[in-house]
Amino acid sequence: MAGNTFGKLFKLTTFGESHGAAIGGVIDGCPSGIKLDFEAIQNELDRRKPGQSKIVTQRKEPDTVEFYSGIFEGVTTGTPIGFVIHNTNQKSKDYSHIKDVYRPSHADYTYDKKYGVRDYRGGGRSSARETASRVVAGAIAKQFLSAIKINAFTSSVGEIFVEKPYQELDFSKIESNVIRCPDEASANKMIAKVQEIKKQGDTIGGTITCVLQNVAVGLGEPVFDKLHAELGKAMLSINAVKGFEYGSGFCGAKMKGSEHNDLFNEDGSTKTNLSGGVQGGISNGMDIYFRVAFKPVATVIQKQDALNSSGEIVEMQGKGRHDPCVVPRAVPIVEAMAALVLADYTLLRRQESQNWD
Amino acid sequence: MAGNTFGKLFKLTTFGESHGAAIGGVIDGCPSGIKLDFEAIQNELDRRKPGQSKIVTQRKEPDTVEFYSGIFEGVTTGTPIGFVIHNTNQKSKDYSHIKDVYRPSHADYTYDKKYGVRDYRGGGRSSARETASRVVAGAIAKQFLSAIKINAFTSSVGEIFVEKPYQELDFSKIESNVIRCPDEASANKMIAKVQEIKKQGDTIGGTITCVLQNVAVGLGEPVFDKLHAELGKAMLSINAVKGFEYGSGFCGAKMKGSEHNDLFNEDGSTKTNLSGGVQGGISNGMDIYFRVAFKPVATVIQKQDALNSSGEIVEMQGKGRHDPCVVPRAVPIVEAMAALVLADYTLLRRQESQNWD
Amino acid sequence: MAGNTFGKLFKLTTFGESHGAAIGGVIDGCPSGIKLDFEAIQNELDRRKPGQSKIVTQRKEPDTVEFYSGIFEGVTTGTPIGFVIHNTNQKSKDYSHIKDVYRPSHADYTYDKKYGVRDYRGGGRSSARETASRVVAGAIAKQFLSAIKINAFTSSVGEIFVEKPYQELDFSKIESNVIRCPDEASANKMIAKVQEIKKQGDTIGGTITCVLQNVAVGLGEPVFDKLHAELGKAMLSINAVKGFEYGSGFCGAKMKGSEHNDLFNEDGSTKTNLSGGVQGGISNGMDIYFRVAFKPVATVIQKQDALNSSGEIVEMQGKGRHDPCVVPRAVPIVEAMAALVLADYTLLRRQESQNWD
Amino acid sequence: MAGNTFGKLFKLTTFGESHGAAIGGVIDGCPSGIKLDFEAIQNELDRRKPGQSKIVTQRKEPDTVEFYSGIFEGVTTGTPIGFVIHNTNQKSKDYSHIKDVYRPSHADYTYDKKYGVRDYRGGGRSSARETASRVVAGAIAKQFLSAIKINAFTSSVGEIFVEKPYQELDFSKIESNVIRCPDEASANKMIAKVQEIKKQGDTIGGTITCVLQNVAVGLGEPVFDKLHAELGKAMLSINAVKGFEYGSGFCGAKMKGSEHNDLFNEDGSTKTNLSGGVQGGISNGMDIYFRVAFKPVATVIQKQDALNSSGEIVEMQGKGRHDPCVVPRAVPIVEAMAALVLADYTLLRRQESQNWD
Repeated sequence: MAGNTFGKLFKLTTFGESHGAAIGGVIDGCPSGIKLDFEAIQNELDRRKPGQSKIVTQRKEPDTVEFYSGIFEGVTTGTPIGFVIHNTNQKSKDYSHIKDVYRPSHADYTYDKKYGVRDYRGGGRSSARETASRVVAGAIAKQFLSAIKINAFTSSVGEIFVEKPYQELDFSKIESNVIRCPDEASANKMIAKVQEIKKQGDTIGGTITCVLQNVAVGLGEPVFDKLHAELGKAMLSINAVKGFEYGSGFCGAKMKGSEHNDLFNEDGSTKTNLSGGVQGGISNGMDIYFRVAFKPVATVIQKQDALNSSGEIVEMQGKGRHDPCVVPRAVPIVEAMAALVLADYTLLRRQESQNWD
Repeated sequence: MAGNTFGKLFKLTTFGESHGAAIGGVIDGCPSGIKLDFEAIQNELDRRKPGQSKIVTQRKEPDTVEFYSGIFEGVTTGTPIGFVIHNTNQKSKDYSHIKDVYRPSHADYTYDKKYGVRDYRGGGRSSARETASRVVAGAIAKQFLSAIKINAFTSSVGEIFVEKPYQELDFSKIESNVIRCPDEASANKMIAKVQEIKKQGDTIGGTITCVLQNVAVGLGEPVFDKLHAELGKAMLSINAVKGFEYGSGFCGAKMKGSEHNDLFNEDGSTKTNLSGGVQGGISNGMDIYFRVAFKPVATVIQKQDALNSSGEIVEMQGKGRHDPCVVPRAVPIVEAMAALVLADYTLLRRQESQNWD
Repeated sequence: MAGNTFGKLFKLTTFGESHGAAIGGVIDGCPSGIKLDFEAIQNELDRRKPGQSKIVTQRKEPDTVEFYSGIFEGVTTGTPIGFVIHNTNQKSKDYSHIKDVYRPSHADYTYDKKYGVRDYRGGGRSSARETASRVVAGAIAKQFLSAIKINAFTSSVGEIFVEKPYQELDFSKIESNVIRCPDEASANKMIAKVQEIKKQGDTIGGTITCVLQNVAVGLGEPVFDKLHAELGKAMLSINAVKGFEYGSGFCGAKMKGSEHNDLFNEDGSTKTNLSGGVQGGISNGMDIYFRVAFKPVATVIQKQDALNSSGEIVEMQGKGRHDPCVVPRAVPIVEAMAALVLADYTLLRRQESQNWD
Repeated sequence: MAGNTFGKLFKLTTFGESHGAAIGGVIDGCPSGIKLDFEAIQNELDRRKPGQSKIVTQRKEPDTVEFYSGIFEGVTTGTPIGFVIHNTNQKSKDYSHIKDVYRPSHADYTYDKKYGVRDYRGGGRSSARETASRVVAGAIAKQFLSAIKINAFTSSVGEIFVEKPYQELDFSKIESNVIRCPDEASANKMIAKVQEIKKQGDTIGGTITCVLQNVAVGLGEPVFDKLHAELGKAMLSINAVKGFEYGSGFCGAKMKGSEHNDLFNEDGSTKTNLSGGVQGGISNGMDIYFRVAFKPVATVIQKQDALNSSGEIVEMQGKGRHDPCVVPRAVPIVEAMAALVLADYTLLRRQESQNWD
């Protein structure tokens, strides 16, 4: 397996299992001369960490990142940035009961079949704990991309959707509630829904919308590495994601060309933006926006049938401290992956741009 | 721009503009010893080619592929397969009227801003003509993957959807109608819709569903190169695609974990398949299915405002012979890209598999 | 096999066998806006082509390149440049006698064992004919790198060496003789040597020295992709190459640090240049120079024992029209590969350079 | 800079500066199911570490490696192996005197010009300390490649060469002396030479020969990723290396084809092996052997002129504890890089081999 690197020029390689000694990664290709704000990095980790509110898992992990290289006197040097987050909360015995059991809709079965050996402790490599490393790298990418505004928010939980288009939302409100929805009325309904689901020992899915603003014209590498294709891959690589759409998305598939076309203004901007800020795989300077679908967390605190490695169906009781809804903690992960794509494509754009000649 | 290669071990690199001398590509990494069925390859090209029916563009291109290397006495040699499709229908004058004009919702503007120079003839590199090279490579990948069944079909045109789940459809009927929908009743409604739209000089969007059967367990490279993430990128790299979902997709985001989990049978298969054949980014042996959203073609045969390179809004009249709905011709392209992903991941799986030791 | 692409941002993918319909390649990542000099490209091909003088193979191949894409009105567009050279001289019957025979010190045996199938006609993919595609790409890279001076020349044939250091040679004389050695006295001895060897039906090895001047400071990507490491790989990928050294090379391994260190001038240049223009894998602005060793061509026009596919030793008589010494025709190939490395590293440098911000 | 990853399927990414908190790396693509011998890994580190004998630097670093992931109950899991070596001996003040000084024939100047910022403490990223991470990964690759014998040894120091061909040497004697030369007589001369040089406060270069035995037929990816080309790049990426030759190498460039050709035995082996075990870039089953040239260490304990960042020539006095000859400590590094190349190409071979079908 060599699928643990993301990016072409701004590259992140991650390592680590949920219950190993540590997780971490290497960022290779981060430009030199960036004065890092370490508080901002830790703040992104805190947005993702467990135990931050009543509606997420009550596990406690401080998730403190240590940087080992690539930074000198607080400034990036252009050499690889190695970092580690030690796992302080490895309750391995919590998982002894699933040692030989494949939980439904988890990766236990496929990892075992693929690798012939498996770290059964809490999902090991397949655990969303790995995404903490993405958040660290994304936080650094955001500092490199300081001109670009990256905002993700919870746009639905179960059947509860934010009605307003993103243009009518105040992104400064995203952090004002625990579900990370900038529309207070919708947020309250969503939070109530998650609490109700949690009481049932059940879980629920949701969607996240992400908006990228002030993106320069010209980012994207046709034909295979179109900007939206790479954003799609980045989002689909996040645990529990089942779908991605940008601009008009699946609704666009119901429309007529005469309705769907975005007419130009004289400055090259467009009157509408059903295209979602990308034409032919290249950014056109308008807002880039997309929506990501998350399935409900597979671990429910109920009795369920599972399969054991001897091929027997066994009843299991979901235990442990799990998220009833992954969406609020996934908001910073979506932003991090978007930042990694934009950082990578900004570097790709730099090398080809006529402006530099 | 170096985004014209797809794949890690089974690699396709394409070249060519819609109105240049030729398009083509290089397939590097195709295993040796595959006896090729050249008729099958040409047949896939014929499914994609213009002029094949009343509901697609009436342009005529024979789209005959010539192979220059990598094949000896009809068998692949393991060396790169170079191929070319000559463009026989370059009516460049058709495009003189848009030389300095950026058409709405086309890539004219972004290509010009990105590269500072532009082949304005019919979209050049951004034209879907490039996908003919993908179909050639996909047809070869299919022959390498002969055990896997790959079937795509039109699942909606505008508001007209196939009601039945794919399990109730007879894939052998896909080619029995020009819209490529195996459900005859729906097909007829879709065809009528496209003809009505065409009369209006308008265009319409649609969706394609693709089903991959008999895929071995263990394909996929966590964490970033998950099988469904690469399938998503592959589909999003196709012209006019706005969204991708697999398994339960966006509907899954409305569900509860207790409803969504796929319970096991003793043989490791699952009673339901909301997961869509992938767990943790790795195939589990169940059907892989996904849905792709296509926007309506941007070229409408109506008067529209456009922008010229001097920054003036000018009225233009859509001309030429264009598709009122891209979906039927996109069916073989979706299959081709799926085949390329599966071929690549099959080779990745080979090198890591314990079974080979 | 997927080893037919060279470069990270300025990428060349080649295809083609010596006796197939055509060879060619795709250049992906060439910047847009370069006005190409097609005569200069053909001139490089002519320097490499067979039949150009009495001391090279008398095969006749016009080696005319056709460009299919990536160029519009004579200017690069930033899209992939697809090109083809048709093989006009496929005397396949010349090779029927070696259909089942593995020639000594050729790639017949290893290709057959690796791929299980083999295009036996004249070495197929392992033939140096493939390098014509490299020369086309290198010629375009040279035009992108117009500020850099790239000069290679024959520095030895057998035991005959150019005595003078390169600084005392007039590179404008390289093309003044058929062996491509700028020192006339040495050139004449080398030419006489090759003619003597040719009479014997034998072949002889030699070395090529290459000098890169006006290279900017800062090219190279530590730690694995050091500039000289990539130059070394590029040269070692050329047929018949057995060794590479840069700067002081193998002689440097005999020296003391106090002798070997290059002391600085105040402008950052150095008084000596045993380093060969690279420090820590990064160009320092001084001349980059290196030497490449070529073995004698394996095909001798003499009786030799060979192995057949049934495991029998059989006597064979070398036939055909072969080079008695590969070095003069390899000079433009060495330059082409150097140009590809410099183009690639120039683009890599662009994206990271603070100067562009 | 994103040049810190080596390999295609068996990938090593390293990070770390000589005087940062730690160095380390991530091995991605190591097959699962390998029971690791941790003592063997530490033993390789001990062969490279400083302070191991009188003729190397007297710095003391325990160089203890910690594994953070990818290993469960002593067995590789197929997930990325993250590891760290903490720097216990960061005497940063030792380097304050060179804060603004570019030492001759070091990378100080080029790093500063390339990145615009520099960790001046002991060379930072350009220090050979980084190679400890390569040795860790190489030690794991060796365990994956247990059937292959990898032996490197010191073949020259200054003008003192081992006269015997490698076939006459007993590799079990390599570790029997501190210079790592299996020929005792030559070893003693080399050791005396290094001690003499050290007394002078000077340094001296040397060469290492490496022999790879029991390599399967068919490793190598023509045309650009030929096995010997990748070995060459791997060796040239090691600090202080100035040249690489394999098989007949530079001597082969003086020979005639009739002398140089390796005639076959009936089993496909060859009577001679001037080819060095590789034909057309693919291993042929014979021994692979190559020679690597190392320049003398640039830090001499003498007065020298240097350049400061203000463009002034200043006198400096080499300080610190440095190697008078890098070759004995480089022996395990050469083996490690050879192991990484063989592991990578073995995986590449697996995926393409017909035998696995």
